[in-house]
Parts: sequence; C-alpha cells; structure tokens
Amino acid sequence: MLLSGGLDSATCLAVAQAEGFAPVALSFRYGQRHDHEVEAARRLAERAGIEHLICHIDLRIFGGSALTADIDVPKDRDLDDQDTIPVTYVPARNTIFLSYALALAEVRGASDIFIGVNAVDYSGYPDCRPEFVAAFESLANLATRAGVEGGPAITIRAPLQDLGKADIIRLGTSLGVDYGLTTSCYDPDDHGRACGRCDSCRLRAEGFGNVGIPDPAV
Amino acid sequence: MLLSGGLDSATCLAVAQAEGFAPVALSFRYGQRHDHEVEAARRLAERAGIEHLICHIDLRIFGGSALTADIDVPKDRDLDDQDTIPVTYVPARNTIFLSYALALAEVRGASDIFIGVNAVDYSGYPDCRPEFVAAFESLANLATRAGVEGGPAITIRAPLQDLGKADIIRLGTSLGVDYGLTTSCYDPDDHGRACGRCDSCRLRAEGFGNVGIPDPAV
Repeated sequence: MLLSGGLDSATCLAVAQAEGFAPVALSFRYGQRHDHEVEAARRLAERAGIEHLICHIDLRIFGGSALTADIDVPKDRDLDDQDTIPVTYVPARNTIFLSYALALAEVRGASDIFIGVNAVDYSGYPDCRPEFVAAFESLANLATRAGVEGGPAITIRAPLQDLGKADIIRLGTSLGVDYGLTTSCYDPDDHGRACGRCDSCRLRAEGFGNVGIPDPAV
Repeated sequence: MLLSGGLDSATCLAVAQAEGFAPVALSFRYGQRHDHEVEAARRLAERAGIEHLICHIDLRIFGGSALTADIDVPKDRDLDDQDTIPVTYVPARNTIFLSYALALAEVRGASDIFIGVNAVDYSGYPDCRPEFVAAFESLANLATRAGVEGGPAITIRAPLQDLGKADIIRLGTSLGVDYGLTTSCYDPDDHGRACGRCDSCRLRAEGFGNVGIPDPAV
C-alpha cells in the first residue's frame, strides 16, 4: 500500500488492516518540499507494526509542480473551482507511485494494492479519480507475469474513493487511527507546523470541523 | 522517448527523428547489473543531438529479477520456450519507465511517447506486448491534465511493435543507425564486452545473421 503520511493514507492503512491484510507500506522521497510527510509515514507504519519501504526518486528532474519546483504553494484558493487543476498537482505522480507498488506487489506475490485517493473533497487532481484507478488496474493485469502466465489478478483498492473528508475522518476514528501522527500541509514551516491556508490544510480543517472533533495534529 | 542504449531503442530514436520529432531521451540507472547501457544511451543521444535525461531510481529495493538481484543471468536458454517468462524480466519495469516518460511529456507538453518494445523476437516479457502499450495509452489519457481539462491526447508510439529483430536492424540501417554505439548484453564483462549467450545477445546475433551483415558492436 501507498502511505504518504497524510490523513487519507493513514485511514486507508487502517481499513486494510481491518480487512485482515498485512500490508507492506511504500513511501517516497520524491523531491517534495519537505520530509515531514515521509517521517509521518514512518511513524504510522511503526505504530501499525508493518513493514515500510521508502523509495528515493527525484521528480524535481521534471518539475512542473509547486511541490517539486520553485513555485509558490497557493494559499486561500477557491476550493469550489473544480475546473482548474492547481499547481500543487505533480504530473503523473500517482501513476509513478502505483507503478512502484505494482513492482513490489509482483515481487511479493501480493494481489491487492491499496491507495488512499478520493475525489470528493479534493483538489481535482486527474490521478485521484475512479476512472484513473480503474485504468491502472487494467494496466496492472496486462503488465505483469499474471497477465501472461495466469495467476491471481491484481486489484487496486481505493476504499476512500467516494468518501468526503468528514466521512474519512469518521471512518478512521472508528478504526482507531491516531490522526495526531499524520501531516497534510503542502507547505509546513521548518518545524513541520501546518500553514493552515493551502488546499490540503483547509480540506482537512473543514473535515474535522464537519465531524465536530478537534484535529489532534493542530 | 525511452532510450535504453540497446539496439531497439536506438532504432526507435531514428524512427522518431525520421518522422520529424525532436525527442527528449530518458534513461534510467535503476540498479541494473551494469552501467554500460546508460553509457550507450548517452552516446546515442549525443550522436543524435538531442536532450538526454538520466533518472536514478533503485529497483533493487524490490529485487525479483536477474537484472536487479543476485540471480544469475540464464545462458543458452531455449528461446522457443514462449510459455515461461525468464528471470531477466524486471517486474513492472516498463510501467515505471513509461510513468516517468508520462511525467516528462506532461511537463513539456509533448503529445507522443516513443518506446522501442517489440513482441516478435523477444523474451516474452508481459510489458512488451501490444495490449500493454494500448492499456498504458488509455491510462495516460486519464492520468494527466489533458484527461480533465481537455487538450491534446497522449499517444504511446511503439513503431517496432510488430517487427522481428532482422526487420528492426534493416529499418535502422536504412535510417543510418550506428549499431556500434549500442549494447544489448544482459551480462557483459567489466569491460562491457557482450557475453554472447544471454537471450539478448542471441536474439541480436540471430538478427544480424538473418540480415547478413556483421554486428559492428561485436
């Protein structure tokens, strides 16, 4: 499973464990603005008692995003603007991450890949949408040994796909997720403190507000 | 375009240039057994006068292949055995490589991604087959801005897809490819000399033999 250290992937991890899976977590240092999220992923995996692999890759070689180039992270953006993909979108990031997860799944003989994407309270990234997830699953089953030799098919699981942020928080809370271990901010300060104004901070704050509980990470 | 430094991708590069494209070449140090192929890619890109990016990634973290783990490269294997995928297959490698190419294409605004895969004289890798290439193209057009905002679709071009090795060599020769710059061996010695006995060496030798010309790299 892909584990970013954010609220969504922490919830996704709890869902996978509740379903009886023994996940292997995969995180990336990809040239993002800060390492706080990889550290959060490490804490979550440790708490969950699962194996955790960290891949070092460099998406700064391509740039093109506020997370991988010297472009400012937008603050106080209009979250209802669903027609524009914000500059925090990292081109092909989830395709790359899922490709690595596919390699790991094939080597380990895993039949399921979990990813915490959702497309309700989100920033409109193309690679978070259900049709993207479905297309990756089709690809996965042609790309691997199973596609030639037969064998168990690969299923891409996105259990949060249709949930809004508040529903995700309710689900995770019911499963005992410690959201105090997670981080969501695109642009934290040097001490890892959230900015409170980027899309990710605001979607998170709205979610906790709608559930009516305080965010333990704030 | 993906450029491995082998015979196929060198030919693919020549085809792209003959079609009027100004390709950006993308190569990978992925933890493969040797760097000779990346050096060959560098020479080919230099000769072609095109931009060349080299990504450093580590597929040894997963292993599972004779090219990325301490597993011997098979020699003198039965090439007519099309039912078994040999251990030189690197799980999800082409999916990962194409994902990076997709990121680059999106950032640069490129509409075409070239890859030199073919599925005639090959080792049966699942991610060289036409159905894999078609599935990746579908994914690419959902994974990126173009899938949401509209804009030019991404085409995955595999111009060698249906060619046997001899036909590839004939095509490349007609386009002026200097195969002396390429390397194909999975298991060269420390000086980069081909072993002559791995699948890749033998498919290459058969190809040149069928065309009736000497291999300038031998």
